[in-house]
Amino acid sequence: MIFPPVSLTLSGDRFTVIYRLAGADEAEARAKIKGICLEQTVELPEELLPDGDIRAEVVGRLEWLRQADANIFEAAISYAVETTGFELPQLLNVMFGNTSMQPHIRVERLELPERLLQTFKGPRFGQSGLRALLQAYGRPLLCTALKPLGLPAKNLADLAGQFALGGIDLIKDDHGLANQPFHPFHERVCRCAEAVNTANQKTGYRCLYAPNISAPAQQIVERAYLAKEAGAGGLMIIPGLVGLDSLRLLAEDDGLGLPVISHPAYWGSYVTHPQQGVAHRLTYGLLPRLAGADATIFVNYGGRFSFTPADCRGIVAGASEPLGRLKPIFPIPGGGMTLARLPEMVQFYGPEVILLIAGGLYAHGPNLLESCRQFRALVDK
Amino acid sequence: MIFPPVSLTLSGDRFTVIYRLAGADEAEARAKIKGICLEQTVELPEELLPDGDIRAEVVGRLEWLRQADANIFEAAISYAVETTGFELPQLLNVMFGNTSMQPHIRVERLELPERLLQTFKGPRFGQSGLRALLQAYGRPLLCTALKPLGLPAKNLADLAGQFALGGIDLIKDDHGLANQPFHPFHERVCRCAEAVNTANQKTGYRCLYAPNISAPAQQIVERAYLAKEAGAGGLMIIPGLVGLDSLRLLAEDDGLGLPVISHPAYWGSYVTHPQQGVAHRLTYGLLPRLAGADATIFVNYGGRFSFTPADCRGIVAGASEPLGRLKPIFPIPGGGMTLARLPEMVQFYGPEVILLIAGGLYAHGPNLLESCRQFRALVDK
Repeated sequence: MIFPPVSLTLSGDRFTVIYRLAGADEAEARAKIKGICLEQTVELPEELLPDGDIRAEVVGRLEWLRQADANIFEAAISYAVETTGFELPQLLNVMFGNTSMQPHIRVERLELPERLLQTFKGPRFGQSGLRALLQAYGRPLLCTALKPLGLPAKNLADLAGQFALGGIDLIKDDHGLANQPFHPFHERVCRCAEAVNTANQKTGYRCLYAPNISAPAQQIVERAYLAKEAGAGGLMIIPGLVGLDSLRLLAEDDGLGLPVISHPAYWGSYVTHPQQGVAHRLTYGLLPRLAGADATIFVNYGGRFSFTPADCRGIVAGASEPLGRLKPIFPIPGGGMTLARLPEMVQFYGPEVILLIAGGLYAHGPNLLESCRQFRALVDK
Repeated sequence: MIFPPVSLTLSGDRFTVIYRLAGADEAEARAKIKGICLEQTVELPEELLPDGDIRAEVVGRLEWLRQADANIFEAAISYAVETTGFELPQLLNVMFGNTSMQPHIRVERLELPERLLQTFKGPRFGQSGLRALLQAYGRPLLCTALKPLGLPAKNLADLAGQFALGGIDLIKDDHGLANQPFHPFHERVCRCAEAVNTANQKTGYRCLYAPNISAPAQQIVERAYLAKEAGAGGLMIIPGLVGLDSLRLLAEDDGLGLPVISHPAYWGSYVTHPQQGVAHRLTYGLLPRLAGADATIFVNYGGRFSFTPADCRGIVAGASEPLGRLKPIFPIPGGGMTLARLPEMVQFYGPEVILLIAGGLYAHGPNLLESCRQFRALVDK
């Protein structure tokens, strides 16, 4: 034997991943499941494993299997919480690390026991905290974006001021605004935050400006602090570009203490094929929330992307389903929305939503301030 | 007009992304391309754009379009280098950020002008530097992994010592070894590095141990330094879990000065569907290399995953094609390989390869040291 018998100290607590296996009959599905149980943990054939707790407890365990459709099975596999080391990157790794390279397997849900939920602080504000910050109750919240890429910082700040005067609650950088020579990060954030805060003094509103902090790894925390010092009221980050754990780092930072918005870019490949990847519910709902996002941007159905109403409902579920003491967070549907779509969006999402209309607001008419006021009036009434 | 005319200072240098559009006739393909040109930059309808350089230079530009197959088109779209802000996360964002949420679009290639290549230091060692470190010339290099998850650090170190004695060049942590209570990072790395270095003193070999540094965001650099101080000769990181720019940060750190190995976990969803995502050539070849990896692990064809020979050739191309002054790096095919597959692997990849056999080495026979010596003899002859 290559390995001695191994005895480990384990809590017995396990978390569960529900996988959807497509194109398989039951025998094939069971073979795939056995493969996942090994691949996601020990990466050895079963017969080579040491006797004792690795074989009995560390290897993934099939909890249940059900047929969901013709040639589609759902399997719940549980893993010892200790396999994650109580760290977010390794939780993703156990959930789907190497299995992400297998076709026709999709992660549908993630069920975390109290022991793992305690590991994560989760959203600092969540829905209720963000409403308190904004002093905005009983209505959907409004979001728009500063654009386009290339517009000088001074002009972006002019836009920000008009949005804030017009009653927008949350103004974010377009996700393509980073640290380009057209609008260097620090100058842009200083100008835009000032414009928003000046407008707030006039209106009495509490509009928040959330710049994009998706910086090189060693500058993420530094830019977040620059933003706070400049008067930004929130932060936006793109976990697909900088890692989900960078979002957690910003969200947990008590010195910042700012709400954090998650942006969906570069993670689309997890969701676009319905039989592969990681479901919308997780990628754009539960995972950003677990990391501490207070709101999660995604593309609404019926815009210029292909998400379906069911996909969007899944994101809302992941953002707001009961999850230990972790607060529910706001869904922010956007992507090709217009004021004309607003009543339908409110009906679909209910009041606990942040409505993102950006291009559609710029296109609504030549007077941006007036367009914002119309946007606001649609939810105030 | 909402926007004033805009005049920008631009170098005129552009980088090019080749996208593959599936399921479209030429008119549909042209409409999709126009959408990409806007989506990846200004995120506004063309008619709303300010006059001047944003419309003329910042918006993506179709360079060429060709029909690759029935209902499949390839399009080269160029972007001003300034749109990236000369930062790696934003380069990925311009390449595929929001378009990742569109089905049936795949990024096939990325062509970077000198101005952008200068931005990236790239691999510190590359193929030639790694060979010099290992003093290993004229043969494929050998890699294996410490496993399984759950095995106490002392036992992992015993394995590491045997691998090093047996003539393995590169010993990596299994990618699931993080900082678990079974084998806490610091203890594991100290023990394993010591075992390898002790073996090296006996053999005269220069075997490198590369622990897994895929830590929480604020601990990545710290763990890398702990590893170096413990005597580790390399670092392994999983960009799919911690962000590609974290790999760059480690690779560029002169205080570390260690070779960096990229691991493919959690990025599989970019490649598993042939009509979506980001091609193998980029995801597991060019992108890790651009960030500074010296070698890139991926799953070989014909193992327990579904990569094809063409996928693997793409990765080799991305890892070694001419790329300014950026050194070529080693492909590390693995994933279900055995000693019996070795001759075929050497024939397929040639000598500039690191052959990863892990489970297959543990399974080869009861005497691990003897199995390693057989592995080594197969490439020494």
